Amino acid sequence: MSDSNDEAATTTHAGPHGYISNKDAYLKRLRRIEGQARGLQGMVADEKYCIDILTQISAMTSALQSVALGLLDDHMSHCVVAAVAAGGEEGNAKIREASTAIARLVRS
Amino acid sequence: MSDSNDEAATTTHAGPHGYISNKDAYLKRLRRIEGQARGLQGMVADEKYCIDILTQISAMTSALQSVALGLLDDHMSHCVVAAVAAGGEEGNAKIREASTAIARLVRS
Amino acid sequence: MSDSNDEAATTTHAGPHGYISNKDAYLKRLRRIEGQARGLQGMVADEKYCIDILTQISAMTSALQSVALGLLDDHMSHCVVAAVAAGGEEGNAKIREASTAIARLVRS
Amino acid sequence: MSDSNDEAATTTHAGPHGYISNKDAYLKRLRRIEGQARGLQGMVADEKYCIDILTQISAMTSALQSVALGLLDDHMSHCVVAAVAAGGEEGNAKIREASTAIARLVRS
Repeated sequence: MSDSNDEAATTTHAGPHGYISNKDAYLKRLRRIEGQARGLQGMVADEKYCIDILTQISAMTSALQSVALGLLDDHMSHCVVAAVAAGGEEGNAKIREASTAIARLVRS
Repeated sequence: MSDSNDEAATTTHAGPHGYISNKDAYLKRLRRIEGQARGLQGMVADEKYCIDILTQISAMTSALQSVALGLLDDHMSHCVVAAVAAGGEEGNAKIREASTAIARLVRS
Repeated sequence: MSDSNDEAATTTHAGPHGYISNKDAYLKRLRRIEGQARGLQGMVADEKYCIDILTQISAMTSALQSVALGLLDDHMSHCVVAAVAAGGEEGNAKIREASTAIARLVRS
Repeated sequence: MSDSNDEAATTTHAGPHGYISNKDAYLKRLRRIEGQARGLQGMVADEKYCIDILTQISAMTSALQSVALGLLDDHMSHCVVAAVAAGGEEGNAKIREASTAIARLVRS
């Protein structure tokens, strides 16, 4: 299933959403996170020591947060900046939307 | 690749680490989290809207935290309780170890 | 001691940093948070039940996060938008600065 | 107003809730946190730069979390251990209660 994603990752057309420049890096980090999720299943299946599993979950959570913060920064640097620079209500709408996403990240 | 994990999940010997009763449930939740990680790769590959990707990451982070809190509760209810009930220094060591894991969870 | 803050809160000159419109509301929330910090001292001094103290700390942390998210939204809606609209490098610098602050909030 | 807390802090009777040994240290940390809450009011009243205020809030949140983790560790080392060692249902109840508090901390 991840093969098709890998292929997609090698397409090079510029997308509309601004983070294309780092796309392969994001995909690589997300594949590693997927691997961590699979590793956790192995640990639970093998009944590894619970504290060691929790350590892995903390590492995976940090990796996910790091991806989220990177995407958010990209989003604000491209999408929000473009909307604000274009003037009008769209810029404010983008800021509000980003604030809502930030609140979800802070509280999750 | 997850097939071998599935097989492992159906083994029924009681393990030493206390959370065996919920093992299948944990494996199911972790497989869903793995699927979310794969879904995120698809979203990035397809250049989905960044805010929608962030929403998925928040959901995945919450799912991971929930697994961690469940495992921690199981660990304390079985492993820590058994060590404390046995008396001696081992109980204190288990409490300290759990506290360290909790601090990592709170800060990650 | 908080009297001087109260007086300051009633000054009405428009400040440079964009959140003036909600200043009194923020001050009120921060005074309540200060009161929570004082209440916690009373609970510890009186040796109240530890779990009840932790519940109060969770409430206080949530209140603080809520203030932070409000200030961040105000900051982006005013300061960042103004910098971006003015054009030039300043907008990018403001976005980077905001991203760094967001990362600190998410990880704290 | 904090004077009365200071006096209370110097009482030396052993309380029932286990963290008496560190009581003065906790009170000192909580007074510093109260001071941070007052400092935040001054920053808002003076309309300091929003990002600087957010930095202070992150520091205050970390200080609060640190107090919570310390109290939780004390609670588990004393109160939970004592309940478990005494045998019976009380130990399980204390573990469940601690787990609920931990979940609140992780999610707040």
